[in-house]
Amino acid sequence: MSLYRRSVTVFQHNLRALDRMLSLAEANAEARGFEADKFLAGRLAPDMFPLTRQIQIACDLAKGASARLAGVEIPKHEDSETTLAELHARIAKVQDFIASLDADAVNAGEQRPITLSIQGNELNFVGAEYLDTWALPNFYFHLSTAYNLLRMQGVPLGKRDFLGRA
Amino acid sequence: MSLYRRSVTVFQHNLRALDRMLSLAEANAEARGFEADKFLAGRLAPDMFPLTRQIQIACDLAKGASARLAGVEIPKHEDSETTLAELHARIAKVQDFIASLDADAVNAGEQRPITLSIQGNELNFVGAEYLDTWALPNFYFHLSTAYNLLRMQGVPLGKRDFLGRA
Repeated sequence: MSLYRRSVTVFQHNLRALDRMLSLAEANAEARGFEADKFLAGRLAPDMFPLTRQIQIACDLAKGASARLAGVEIPKHEDSETTLAELHARIAKVQDFIASLDADAVNAGEQRPITLSIQGNELNFVGAEYLDTWALPNFYFHLSTAYNLLRMQGVPLGKRDFLGRA
Repeated sequence: MSLYRRSVTVFQHNLRALDRMLSLAEANAEARGFEADKFLAGRLAPDMFPLTRQIQIACDLAKGASARLAGVEIPKHEDSETTLAELHARIAKVQDFIASLDADAVNAGEQRPITLSIQGNELNFVGAEYLDTWALPNFYFHLSTAYNLLRMQGVPLGKRDFLGRA
């Protein structure tokens, strides 16, 4: 399994699943007779991020991890979305960016030194380790939390939707 | 990054984080003056699994994925836990099992054919693909949902606890 398939291909698959779950949420809100954007403020605890931010962070992890592995600059995407339509566009922007990356460059990232600055602490990784112990667990966390926030608000989703196998 | 490090080592790390989050939940319940096992019935939606089952499934994914990659029989663990003490023991049982696996056997599993039977459908993978597109997303889903269920019930956890970096 190449590093490209374990990163870019995995992100592409899961962002498609996320995008589709948002569409299912829109259809569900329409059937229930309210504005789908009302889902976006949902949160699991008062000090957790709402759905909008969960989606933005998932996007940033896919974008940032793919760029870091490829050794290219990370494009800046502002966190300005307030509607599901804008979040679909944010996901599409990340999909366009990661699809543009050179597979050989990503595959060459296995041992690339990667440094993160998290709340003032410097974290040092090499590429594959960064993917497996930081980017993927974080990415799946925010994807799972987005799913959970939709389920909690009554959107009829199943594990197959989360896994992108529906 | 060897297949062993991407599977067994990753499961070991995350099961330790899960075990520690359950201990933090116990300390929190004690401080709040109720029985910590009350957390176990928490669920995010009426048709989602409660916390107990989320932990059991995370355990089974770590156990099953590690065994399948190594090409050995999957030990059967009954889903009989009703207390946090029993769930700690379930996690320990999985840790003992996956620590006993031969790293070379796991690493030899990259192209091993793996067939799952999910709700009557047969899913066919090879080892690394099974890990990256089935076992890990599923494992992180149940781990994230366990974290979310504790957060939703007021346990003071942070992302660093989820990532096992606290």
